[in-house]
Amino acid sequence: MRKTESLKKLLDSPELEFLMEAHNGLSAGIVENAGFNCIWASGLAISASMGVRDNNELSWTQVLEIVEFMSDAVKIPILLDGDTGYGNYNNMRRLVRKLEQRGVAGVCIEDKLFPKTNSFLGQRQPLADIKEFSGKIRAGKDSQTDDSFCIVARVEAFISGWGLAEALKRAEAYHEAGADAILMHSKRSDFREIETFMKEWGNRCPVVIVPTKYFQTPTSAFRESGISVVIWANHLLRSAITAMKNTAAQIYQSESLAQVEHKVASLSDIFELQKCNELREAEKRYLPQGNGGRIV
Amino acid sequence: MRKTESLKKLLDSPELEFLMEAHNGLSAGIVENAGFNCIWASGLAISASMGVRDNNELSWTQVLEIVEFMSDAVKIPILLDGDTGYGNYNNMRRLVRKLEQRGVAGVCIEDKLFPKTNSFLGQRQPLADIKEFSGKIRAGKDSQTDDSFCIVARVEAFISGWGLAEALKRAEAYHEAGADAILMHSKRSDFREIETFMKEWGNRCPVVIVPTKYFQTPTSAFRESGISVVIWANHLLRSAITAMKNTAAQIYQSESLAQVEHKVASLSDIFELQKCNELREAEKRYLPQGNGGRIV
Amino acid sequence: MRKTESLKKLLDSPELEFLMEAHNGLSAGIVENAGFNCIWASGLAISASMGVRDNNELSWTQVLEIVEFMSDAVKIPILLDGDTGYGNYNNMRRLVRKLEQRGVAGVCIEDKLFPKTNSFLGQRQPLADIKEFSGKIRAGKDSQTDDSFCIVARVEAFISGWGLAEALKRAEAYHEAGADAILMHSKRSDFREIETFMKEWGNRCPVVIVPTKYFQTPTSAFRESGISVVIWANHLLRSAITAMKNTAAQIYQSESLAQVEHKVASLSDIFELQKCNELREAEKRYLPQGNGGRIV
Amino acid sequence: MRKTESLKKLLDSPELEFLMEAHNGLSAGIVENAGFNCIWASGLAISASMGVRDNNELSWTQVLEIVEFMSDAVKIPILLDGDTGYGNYNNMRRLVRKLEQRGVAGVCIEDKLFPKTNSFLGQRQPLADIKEFSGKIRAGKDSQTDDSFCIVARVEAFISGWGLAEALKRAEAYHEAGADAILMHSKRSDFREIETFMKEWGNRCPVVIVPTKYFQTPTSAFRESGISVVIWANHLLRSAITAMKNTAAQIYQSESLAQVEHKVASLSDIFELQKCNELREAEKRYLPQGNGGRIV
Repeated sequence: MRKTESLKKLLDSPELEFLMEAHNGLSAGIVENAGFNCIWASGLAISASMGVRDNNELSWTQVLEIVEFMSDAVKIPILLDGDTGYGNYNNMRRLVRKLEQRGVAGVCIEDKLFPKTNSFLGQRQPLADIKEFSGKIRAGKDSQTDDSFCIVARVEAFISGWGLAEALKRAEAYHEAGADAILMHSKRSDFREIETFMKEWGNRCPVVIVPTKYFQTPTSAFRESGISVVIWANHLLRSAITAMKNTAAQIYQSESLAQVEHKVASLSDIFELQKCNELREAEKRYLPQGNGGRIV
Repeated sequence: MRKTESLKKLLDSPELEFLMEAHNGLSAGIVENAGFNCIWASGLAISASMGVRDNNELSWTQVLEIVEFMSDAVKIPILLDGDTGYGNYNNMRRLVRKLEQRGVAGVCIEDKLFPKTNSFLGQRQPLADIKEFSGKIRAGKDSQTDDSFCIVARVEAFISGWGLAEALKRAEAYHEAGADAILMHSKRSDFREIETFMKEWGNRCPVVIVPTKYFQTPTSAFRESGISVVIWANHLLRSAITAMKNTAAQIYQSESLAQVEHKVASLSDIFELQKCNELREAEKRYLPQGNGGRIV
Repeated sequence: MRKTESLKKLLDSPELEFLMEAHNGLSAGIVENAGFNCIWASGLAISASMGVRDNNELSWTQVLEIVEFMSDAVKIPILLDGDTGYGNYNNMRRLVRKLEQRGVAGVCIEDKLFPKTNSFLGQRQPLADIKEFSGKIRAGKDSQTDDSFCIVARVEAFISGWGLAEALKRAEAYHEAGADAILMHSKRSDFREIETFMKEWGNRCPVVIVPTKYFQTPTSAFRESGISVVIWANHLLRSAITAMKNTAAQIYQSESLAQVEHKVASLSDIFELQKCNELREAEKRYLPQGNGGRIV
Repeated sequence: MRKTESLKKLLDSPELEFLMEAHNGLSAGIVENAGFNCIWASGLAISASMGVRDNNELSWTQVLEIVEFMSDAVKIPILLDGDTGYGNYNNMRRLVRKLEQRGVAGVCIEDKLFPKTNSFLGQRQPLADIKEFSGKIRAGKDSQTDDSFCIVARVEAFISGWGLAEALKRAEAYHEAGADAILMHSKRSDFREIETFMKEWGNRCPVVIVPTKYFQTPTSAFRESGISVVIWANHLLRSAITAMKNTAAQIYQSESLAQVEHKVASLSDIFELQKCNELREAEKRYLPQGNGGRIV
């Protein structure tokens, strides 16, 4: 099964499915090893890991390169958090073609304006014109050469302070434009506004959610309301930050590795994640015996 | 003080100094915040974080881009682990010029052959010809436009199974070629071979070590033998791996964020590391009042 | 003199100065060799040379990389055609910092919207809000660390079908925001609208023009009206296209090089433009005698 | 037919086929428009166009990006001049996978050492170990996922001053290792050494030649001796250099475009090469009527 098919199947699945955030090739591998079926290449996590802001400070080709490394590192599909598509319908077309080439299975775009601001910052961020954004979705869908490549349309109506009517209007328009799923975002600490949306939505197409702020809502509530996919959107990055801060502090204070060594992954763990064994085997096949074809 | 001056001063300092590994802009910021004076941009950690091997699978310009993000994220200097210089003396010249432009304070190159293999893998890796490697150092030094840019020459003689004589011969040659410091590497679990080297070396120029394998040696032993700089070479990456593995496993099994949320850095922590406040302030200065110059 | 100082001096010079288009390292070298004092890194020419459209199909970092190669190839300054600054004031800040690092002397930004359309295509392209664009100029100026880095503000009022009043209002606002010069663009086949502008403008700051469409206007007219800088904006690319089309056709038809060989630059010409001699000299300095440090 | 299939078919064709050099998206489009069936992405031309030397001054990912633009610009296949494969068998494996993703149909690698030197410079350049190079070919072939992706093995024996026996030995080894064709290179001004090779070779697999130096040999001679493919290796670049030099000189001296305008391609020619019409049509499909979805 191609990665795109896996993602499409996962979106359409009657079961509740889970995507786990990753932000580079390493974390992508960890997500795959943990058993997840799909990766969320988070814009927030990717930008933060590079040391920049979630405001399109990275160019779209820099994001593309990072997600290419991620895609190379795993066999499970990746859904890229593609911000606003990095421009208009034409930039979206280029994005879709480039993602397909790199083996990325799908992209999620949100109905805000370029350059974007993270959804959890500020109030009443301006939204894209519905027709313009729908055209962007159609342009993306028309550009894909692989039938199963997925475009998820993220509705920021709730995030920007609009109500149910606006959320429904936008979801409907994006669905009609060809979106494979709707991501309905919310920054409330409870599930209520999305729950209400789900009742009205009536399962017209798969709905994806990101419960970063309403993490206390039990997963059963998502199942009951008919959600298709839950994204755990930034927790690997956040756990890495905590760990790295602690390790840096401990080494700085103790001027020693002794207390840290047994708490952290071993070098062998790294080599295993890097698949160094494969290289050792390949060397036997492709390098002349003796000194490995190199001078001493 | 320019970053290059800070690094040069640190190498020449009579005190024992410490470099902490980072592998992207985020971890670089964490190292700086922890109080360290300088960052080791580890080739192993960078390649592992991207999901590839430490065998020059990344092109030198891909490494350059990563270290540029790191450099942009911090005010403290960065010493790049530049493998073998990614080619011959001419590639080294280009590397030095490009690093200077990106504000990277120095580069460490090792006397092995391109493409390299991680020092902790395999046995008796072939070494570079001493004259060829010395020419590479000279070419690098002649190319720098900033007097304080530092080139550290890493001797892999012990790693490759050679003895003290070879290590001394190489260190001496690289020192004469203009290296600002010698990195004497060892994969023994004790400090002995480097200790012996230090006695013979007699402080001809600063010596840098990487006690990844001899982590149990007390730091006082490094001080006593006259070491200038200790590199804690890969421990932020290793702690991030452990944390991300655990978090991924926990979320996978519980299908919930509830148990994880309080253990990981908050969104605000991320926003702070990204310096989002600066942007909010800048917006007031540069964007028209009202809707931020964007359509609703 | 730094490249930025050369550009600043050229903009402020009482003499009429000329910028010649280049679109890659090769054409940049040709411009320098021809005697020009400064290069116009044309967005149209760069995008066309890469085989894409002048609609921000290239990401800003892809443009950055191309202009870095150009800057590395020459000693004269480069003014980059920076479209709309590739986003808002914050993207502009990043752009300025990255251009400074690469030794690019200045950037010209135009008061249109991202993604841009080439000025010679279509009618009544929408313009940027004056305050928003002025904020972008200020943000750029505040970000430069080199006092002499130049920001040229390109007014598209005439291009978009507006009259003199709008052109003056915008020029004045951008000048007040700190622009080092105003580029007043026109797509008429005569010099009239700019001539009128110049009378009203009264030399408040240097004015740059691009007479691609009014190429028949004698240069003396530009001098008399007080223009500071003329950009020959795309003619190297256009002459290369003609030459390559002819050569391709001739070789295709004749299935032979015989008729072409004496009409085209020699291999030695290429090697000279690449400065291969410098490498041969460097090899003597840095490579061991004998086999050049390489195995046979 | 996939691009790889077209290239494979062309290599295996009983007719003499011709490849024309291109070095960026623009020249690739010109080659296609002229009627050629395949493009030679020349390492010399690409490096020269970027303003650097043909000594692996470009990283392999920088070459990859350029050839991706070329591939995007045309429907005919591209054979990349891949130097020595940019490293060992493992770098070759990565290269093949990345080229496949970008739609590049094949790669030619030469039996020299990294970093390479242009074949027309210097004498007796060292050659790769036959077994090591054969392993590199096998590694490449084993890595391709598209059966028709082509690997051409370039023999530099004649270039490095070796005789027929060495050339045959290497050609035979590379053929056995799986090369889809042999490129037999020569820098003599006549066809003799290759003619002799062809008699001995006996058509074991397709042979490609590059008659840059023996351009006076009539093409009929190539046909008669059984050559499969002729590469016109650098003539678009060379004609562009001549044209750009002349244009730059003329504009510099005349301080005017008047004499140049009618000799060079028009703006419309550029827009046509950029396929701007397609964008205008797409805009109607994807942008809302009215102001194009943009603010005034």
